[in-house]
Amino acid sequence: MPITANDPKRKTWLDIPSNTDFPIQNIPFGVFLTRDDIVTIGTRIGDYAIDLGALHQLGYFDEIPLTDDIFLQDTLNDFIADGKKTWRLVRNRIADIFDEKNSQLKDNQDHRNTVLFTLDEIEMQLPVQVGDYTDFYSSKEHATNVGTMFRDPDNALLPNWLHIPVGYHGRSSSIIPSGIPVHRPQGQTLPAGASEPVFGPSKLVDFELEMAFITTVGNPLGEPIPIEEAEDYIFGMVLFNDWSARDIQKWEYVPLGPFLAKNFASSISPWIVTLDALEPFRTTSPEPEKELLPYLQSQGKKSFNINLEVAIQPENKEETTISKSNFKYMYWNMSQQLAHHTVNGCPINSGDMMGSGTISGPTPDSYGSMLELSWRGEKPVKLNDGSERKFIQDNDTVIMRGYCEGKDRRIGFGEVSTKLLPVYEPQTKKK
Amino acid sequence: MPITANDPKRKTWLDIPSNTDFPIQNIPFGVFLTRDDIVTIGTRIGDYAIDLGALHQLGYFDEIPLTDDIFLQDTLNDFIADGKKTWRLVRNRIADIFDEKNSQLKDNQDHRNTVLFTLDEIEMQLPVQVGDYTDFYSSKEHATNVGTMFRDPDNALLPNWLHIPVGYHGRSSSIIPSGIPVHRPQGQTLPAGASEPVFGPSKLVDFELEMAFITTVGNPLGEPIPIEEAEDYIFGMVLFNDWSARDIQKWEYVPLGPFLAKNFASSISPWIVTLDALEPFRTTSPEPEKELLPYLQSQGKKSFNINLEVAIQPENKEETTISKSNFKYMYWNMSQQLAHHTVNGCPINSGDMMGSGTISGPTPDSYGSMLELSWRGEKPVKLNDGSERKFIQDNDTVIMRGYCEGKDRRIGFGEVSTKLLPVYEPQTKKK
Repeated sequence: MPITANDPKRKTWLDIPSNTDFPIQNIPFGVFLTRDDIVTIGTRIGDYAIDLGALHQLGYFDEIPLTDDIFLQDTLNDFIADGKKTWRLVRNRIADIFDEKNSQLKDNQDHRNTVLFTLDEIEMQLPVQVGDYTDFYSSKEHATNVGTMFRDPDNALLPNWLHIPVGYHGRSSSIIPSGIPVHRPQGQTLPAGASEPVFGPSKLVDFELEMAFITTVGNPLGEPIPIEEAEDYIFGMVLFNDWSARDIQKWEYVPLGPFLAKNFASSISPWIVTLDALEPFRTTSPEPEKELLPYLQSQGKKSFNINLEVAIQPENKEETTISKSNFKYMYWNMSQQLAHHTVNGCPINSGDMMGSGTISGPTPDSYGSMLELSWRGEKPVKLNDGSERKFIQDNDTVIMRGYCEGKDRRIGFGEVSTKLLPVYEPQTKKK
Repeated sequence: MPITANDPKRKTWLDIPSNTDFPIQNIPFGVFLTRDDIVTIGTRIGDYAIDLGALHQLGYFDEIPLTDDIFLQDTLNDFIADGKKTWRLVRNRIADIFDEKNSQLKDNQDHRNTVLFTLDEIEMQLPVQVGDYTDFYSSKEHATNVGTMFRDPDNALLPNWLHIPVGYHGRSSSIIPSGIPVHRPQGQTLPAGASEPVFGPSKLVDFELEMAFITTVGNPLGEPIPIEEAEDYIFGMVLFNDWSARDIQKWEYVPLGPFLAKNFASSISPWIVTLDALEPFRTTSPEPEKELLPYLQSQGKKSFNINLEVAIQPENKEETTISKSNFKYMYWNMSQQLAHHTVNGCPINSGDMMGSGTISGPTPDSYGSMLELSWRGEKPVKLNDGSERKFIQDNDTVIMRGYCEGKDRRIGFGEVSTKLLPVYEPQTKKK
């Protein structure tokens, strides 16, 4: 089935900014609360949020086999569980409805009033109920930086790193959409030189610039996904801030990996941009430096050229962009990650989320965490208001943005923006 | 609300074996498929499975505020999400219905035909849809054995071990109920002396004798669960076989922890035994060897005296019991695990699962894995059929059992039994 929604010549009758992340060629999917307190699945064109539940009730999807309530859901899970064949039909149809050549909805003011919302009228929700969340560690620059700082600059990469897309399981319950603030976590840390740990607020709260993909269908227990079929299992991508508490992490992570240092919050952008929309921005991954085992050998352009930026906004101040990176730097691509994840028979379900790992580029201004940007705090990062940051301070907002830019279009992700609140104080008085 | 279901004097009018794991004082909860292909929530007394959906339709729970379909569910999640107050009422009521002094159901043959099943008429399902699964590493004997084998006998425990209940996130999607077979996983391993990894079947497939608890209610993002309230968040416990591929684990696990070595399968017993039923078997945990930070200081009897056994049954042969351990050996208890897990604000949801970690006892015949029982393969374990095992062979079935035994009752978990099948072969021919 052709992806007609991607037609670069297509224009919309909606009035949208020329540089929007969400032209009619994007058509991402998300879930929002409307002004009438109804939760619905929707899409976004320019600065309009579009209620797909209402569009469906008005008959605009009648030619597509969909259940009546497919869009009247708290999450995208049921909608995407059918796989590409269904959501591609819907995406193509949305492009038709909003095409400047199509006056059906354009000329029906009642219908327009029902389905179109401005962004300040809605509240974005978590787009999927994530069943399992896995985080990879697939940026060679990031793994090298961390290995250089904490182990040995001459042997920064561990022996397995060039052979397997190293990954680990994360916590689904603390995945939150952009806009939900996060409390500075408390926990155990071992102060420098001490022999006994102390309890208190993390002093080294950090972001990690990542992207994540959401799966659309699953494999049965015991049956691996071959690498050449892996993209059929992927629905789309989001921006992902993998909040991290470096001091908690350092004390807890041996031998089983990071735990409380990560699971206090993981923030994602609320609009899932489909792999279909990203199609024009395919690119190759870096050449493997080691011969890969056959199940990980990836053919063709399986990565994407996605510009990424991180900004810090202190409370009531302007923001400062502190890093510019790109998804294409990833050494391991999503197909390799999925093939590896399932090669032992591990089942994936629709609505799982897999993070890329911190996406650091080759230069110091493209690193994807404060740990690297400030080099463990040795080189504080200057902000426009004159202040400096080694790590994230209370009431700072961390904003990540991402977009693809080509000759004939820009396809963006919007942003994931999260404010770090001070430590949580229980309402009841302590005894 | 008193736990009247626990009354030791209570007898049932059902004909049940005297040494059953499931006397009328147990009343666990599970989900099964009936002979009419209906999925229902049920309980078990002796060798009878009891259809709670049917009992409810017949009016036996009319005095308890329950929705009509609360038991006609694929999982226990909705039923337990209310917390202790609801499932305790139901459990007490079930005890009344089957009490020998109550003839209401006993004397109604039609009703009995509708609600009672023999075990061969039903098929047990996964009892909960696990949102997030966490595995701890809370047996000091196990951590010491592993540290002795792989690191340094004189410093077997890592510095953090006596200060925090070390844990990590596992994979929910591969949690399966007893009876579902598992294929031997394939993956990357680094052969001894080699510099490049190879791909193939794991040669070191192992079990891990664990127990797991299931949560009944959750905490909001950002708000820790105080240790003294932790048990209010726990529904009950199951036996848990945390399948492990030791050779895959060894190559992959640095620096982010075990991944494919664990997530090919995790088997649990299908009946969840409530904390209420385990109440008479409370015991203290081992005395902490280090002063604990206040949030981990646990008062009173927060562990349970649960006898555990592991048997291996080669295909078409009799089984051999190869280990006898006890849950009470756990250094860290469930309240400490939950308090630690949430101290950073990580949210727990109803239906999460938390594994204890391998439960090894102090003596070599009480170790909880083949890795320890055969001491890395140096001391093969003899089976009754004359064969030996260093690790698990194809077509072996691993069976774990657990029960509490006191003066006036036995409360058991039944078993988790899982057959290891050979490597999965795709049905389609390879090109």
